[in-house]
Formats: sequence, structure tokens, C-alpha cells
Amino acid sequence: MPIVQIEMFEGRTLEQKRMLVEKVTQAIVESVNTAPENVKIVIRDMSKENYAIAGKLACDK
Amino acid sequence: MPIVQIEMFEGRTLEQKRMLVEKVTQAIVESVNTAPENVKIVIRDMSKENYAIAGKLACDK
Amino acid sequence: MPIVQIEMFEGRTLEQKRMLVEKVTQAIVESVNTAPENVKIVIRDMSKENYAIAGKLACDK
Amino acid sequence: MPIVQIEMFEGRTLEQKRMLVEKVTQAIVESVNTAPENVKIVIRDMSKENYAIAGKLACDK
Amino acid sequence: MPIVQIEMFEGRTLEQKRMLVEKVTQAIVESVNTAPENVKIVIRDMSKENYAIAGKLACDK
Amino acid sequence: MPIVQIEMFEGRTLEQKRMLVEKVTQAIVESVNTAPENVKIVIRDMSKENYAIAGKLACDK
Repeated sequence: MPIVQIEMFEGRTLEQKRMLVEKVTQAIVESVNTAPENVKIVIRDMSKENYAIAGKLACDK
Repeated sequence: MPIVQIEMFEGRTLEQKRMLVEKVTQAIVESVNTAPENVKIVIRDMSKENYAIAGKLACDK
Repeated sequence: MPIVQIEMFEGRTLEQKRMLVEKVTQAIVESVNTAPENVKIVIRDMSKENYAIAGKLACDK
Repeated sequence: MPIVQIEMFEGRTLEQKRMLVEKVTQAIVESVNTAPENVKIVIRDMSKENYAIAGKLACDK
Repeated sequence: MPIVQIEMFEGRTLEQKRMLVEKVTQAIVESVNTAPENVKIVIRDMSKENYAIAGKLACDK
Repeated sequence: MPIVQIEMFEGRTLEQKRMLVEKVTQAIVESVNTAPENVKIVIRDMSKENYAIAGKLACDK
């Protein structure tokens, strides 16, 4: 605990993911007073065909 | 808000997904009194190897 | 399958939830060619203290 | 109900998944007094690039 | 890893939850060759007002 | 997009949640090159009766 899930569009580089999990972990540690070892992060890559706002797929915008 | 996740077997066409997000968004807007812009939908395609009912994988049925 | 999760602010009436699951189920059945019995919906009620956009909690807006 | 999601690293064989859903279903049936038909399990395969503990991606360890 | 989520109707006793997490953890360890320490389980209690099959809320059945 | 879910033990103050969503949003914006308006965060408060590691509930440790 905490367990974090981040859903985002596919295409981010490994370097961006590295920075993402480092910075998000730090943000959580500073805010809710927990040790870094407790923070687990799951990233989900999503295709633009699989996300919609206002009834329209992201790939159609 | 609302955030919707729809988990279903892979293999649906883009046209089916288009209809799905349009109709589901409309269903939510009519039922809970929110604007279409507030409705976000995430679709997750799943392989039949990754779903089970009653202890049996869907790919084995 | 499909399994649907709908995350929304708490405070909807039972009548709204009834309409919501009926209409969303119908929308899915019409779009992706499945039987109503296959559609499972989970609703999650969320407090405004537990949702944020652009770094601001909904309860602070 | 119950609906179970199991997030794990990709690379498990079909045979392992078969055993997994069978054993987990049985464990739930024995513990919370429900019929096997009610237990649905979703498996999510995850790349080591998409999981982090303590701010470090699993692929970097 | 693995991370498990179990969504079920509220009302289970602490004793049932204790048995549930013990047995499910064991089932996973035996099936996919991982150490017990790696298995994290999140239980979500759900009201019958918040679950539907075939377009009908569980509380209406 | 991105959509973030943070599962953590209940008991955090409103002030901690405020800081959490602000800092996590900033961490994501800096890492994956997106606008703050695109970042949605859902917090889930969890009881110690509903989380387990290594087959043991957190409330029993």
C-alpha cells in the first residue's frame, strides 16, 4: 500500500516511464507519509481505439 | 466523472467500439443527469486465455 | 463478459441506478452482439474528496 | 460475484493459468460460501516495463 | 506482483476474509511459482445496490 | 487521460489528499508531457480488513 494504477496512451518511452514512476512515488511519499518500498505502481498502455470522451473514440478526434 | 471501464473479449471491430462508446455514453447521460463531456470510457480487450468462470478458462470451453 | 465498472459521485438514487444498469446493459447488447445475461455491471460510489482533475479535489471546486 | 482480477507478469503458460483459475476459484468457494459459477476471474498480463516498486521499474532491477 | 482484487458482496465476516486471503494466496503460490510475500490482495465490499447482471440490480432480485 | 487510481489505507486527512493530488498531477505532467487538465485521479480509501500481503490481513499484523 499504496497501490497506484496509471492508465495512459501507449507510445511513451522507457525513459518517460522511468521518470514517471520515480516522480509519482516521490510525490506519494511526501504527501501521505509512507516509505517508498510501500508504493507499487502499475502502468497500463492504452490504444486510442480504446478510450472515449463524450461518446467519441480518441482515434476519431 | 463518471469513469467507465468495459472489459470484453478482443476481436470487436472499430465500428462496434464506436457504436459502443456512443450508446453507453448516451445511456449514462440519460440516467444520471450528467453532460456527455463528463463521461470517459476505457475499453479493455481481453484474450480468451485470460478470463474464467467457474474455474475454467474461456479458451477451454 | 463484458464486465463494466462505473465510477461516479455518490448521491444517486436507487431509481437512477436502476435506470443506469438497464440502459447501459441495453447499449452494450446492441453494440457488441452479446446476451444481456453476459453483462455484469459494478457501480462504485465516490466521495468528492476522492476525485481530482488538474490537481484539484472535486470537493474544493 | 465475486469478480477477481489478477495482475501478474506476462510469460505464464496456458497450463499455469489453467491451474491458477481452478485453484483460486476453489479457494474462494471454500472461504466465502458461494457457488463456483459465481466466480469470474480476469487475468492481466503485465510487462516488466509497466510495474514499479519503490520508484523503480521491474525491468531495471 | 501478483496483485489481486476481489470484488464481493459486503457482509462477510473477518474470519471469512482471513480464510479467503490465506487460501487465495496459497492457490496463487502453487500455480504460478511465486513467493507468498509477492502476493497482495485487495478486497472490495460491494452493496447489492451496486451490482447488476442482465440489466437488473442485485438488490431487486 | 491519464487516469490514475490510488488505493491506500483510510485515515488520511483532507489536507493530505489535497497535497497528494497536486503533487501526483505535477509528477505526471513533468514526466509524460501532458496538460494538468488531462490528469484525473481517483482515490480509494481501504480498511485494514480489506488488504493482505503474504496471505495475512493488514489488520492482523
